[in-house]
Amino acid sequence: MRKNFGAKPVFFPMPVLIVGTYGEDGTPDAMNAAWGCLCAPNQLSLFLSAGHRTVKNLLAKGAFTVSMATAKELVPADYVGMVSANDVPDKLEKTGWHLHKSEFVDAPVIEELPLTLECRLVRYDPETTQLVGEIVNVSAEESVLGEKGQVDPALLDPICYDSENSQYLRLGEVVGNAFRDGGALK
Amino acid sequence: MRKNFGAKPVFFPMPVLIVGTYGEDGTPDAMNAAWGCLCAPNQLSLFLSAGHRTVKNLLAKGAFTVSMATAKELVPADYVGMVSANDVPDKLEKTGWHLHKSEFVDAPVIEELPLTLECRLVRYDPETTQLVGEIVNVSAEESVLGEKGQVDPALLDPICYDSENSQYLRLGEVVGNAFRDGGALK
Repeated sequence: MRKNFGAKPVFFPMPVLIVGTYGEDGTPDAMNAAWGCLCAPNQLSLFLSAGHRTVKNLLAKGAFTVSMATAKELVPADYVGMVSANDVPDKLEKTGWHLHKSEFVDAPVIEELPLTLECRLVRYDPETTQLVGEIVNVSAEESVLGEKGQVDPALLDPICYDSENSQYLRLGEVVGNAFRDGGALK
Repeated sequence: MRKNFGAKPVFFPMPVLIVGTYGEDGTPDAMNAAWGCLCAPNQLSLFLSAGHRTVKNLLAKGAFTVSMATAKELVPADYVGMVSANDVPDKLEKTGWHLHKSEFVDAPVIEELPLTLECRLVRYDPETTQLVGEIVNVSAEESVLGEKGQVDPALLDPICYDSENSQYLRLGEVVGNAFRDGGALK
């Protein structure tokens, strides 16, 4: 039996994206966002309402970073989503994360998060809340790279957000034998 | 050490979204899309180039469904992403999936996929490839609902796409003790 729920924001998996910015005065900030995805081979879209400090910052600087939250960094990743820089201006300091400025854009790289997309602002529309960023560079810690130099999700150990149950999940094992690998249709 | 990769579409996790449509003549179609996310409490965005049969269909009908691919349905979910309806018009028939028309929009519900977002077309922009849908209804099989009536990801068993390694992954276990549950910052 199928049950109808009406309109509802249900989606699996949702990412846990840590969006890093600098304020006009250089204060770093980060927030946690689940509504985002790639939208072109060198672009991503996030949907962020205009009240976020992050949005003010990236409009001022024209840049931001997007890092994938990992199981190891669960507590600070959740913290930056629960607390607003509008209320706690030095919230990023409380995470204990170490930062350096991206070589490519005017935004912080969080050293504890091993995979970061360094982005230039393309456009932001406060009405639709769509933020488009050009991925100028992807940087990854060598510790999360597999044999062929690609990012290995088992080493990265990224998390996803389950909004239905207000919890975070790990990614699990590879599901093998897809059609591309010779798996047969019934 | 961090390694720089330049511009590259890396993102974890990416969903495996099965987009269902009817053609003008009523022929059902489905495709597999990884670039999509929620963009409002009752809307989602997908990024699909205009050449897809799916896009032609949803522009004609003003409707589409988005179902989460599951580990159990890995082979047909991958198949509909590997084969184009422009080449194999009856591709959906080959999956063995059973379909019925959504009660709410003019698009097919795939019975083997237990979670479906039934959407009305809001807009499509061939230049940015952004498709926005209004989620009119979410339907879910009772077999994937937890005790409180919410979707339980352990029961749904959705997969995500790993484009770095061209493979699919399960979602894994809950990562506990986030900040919201009392987890302490260092």
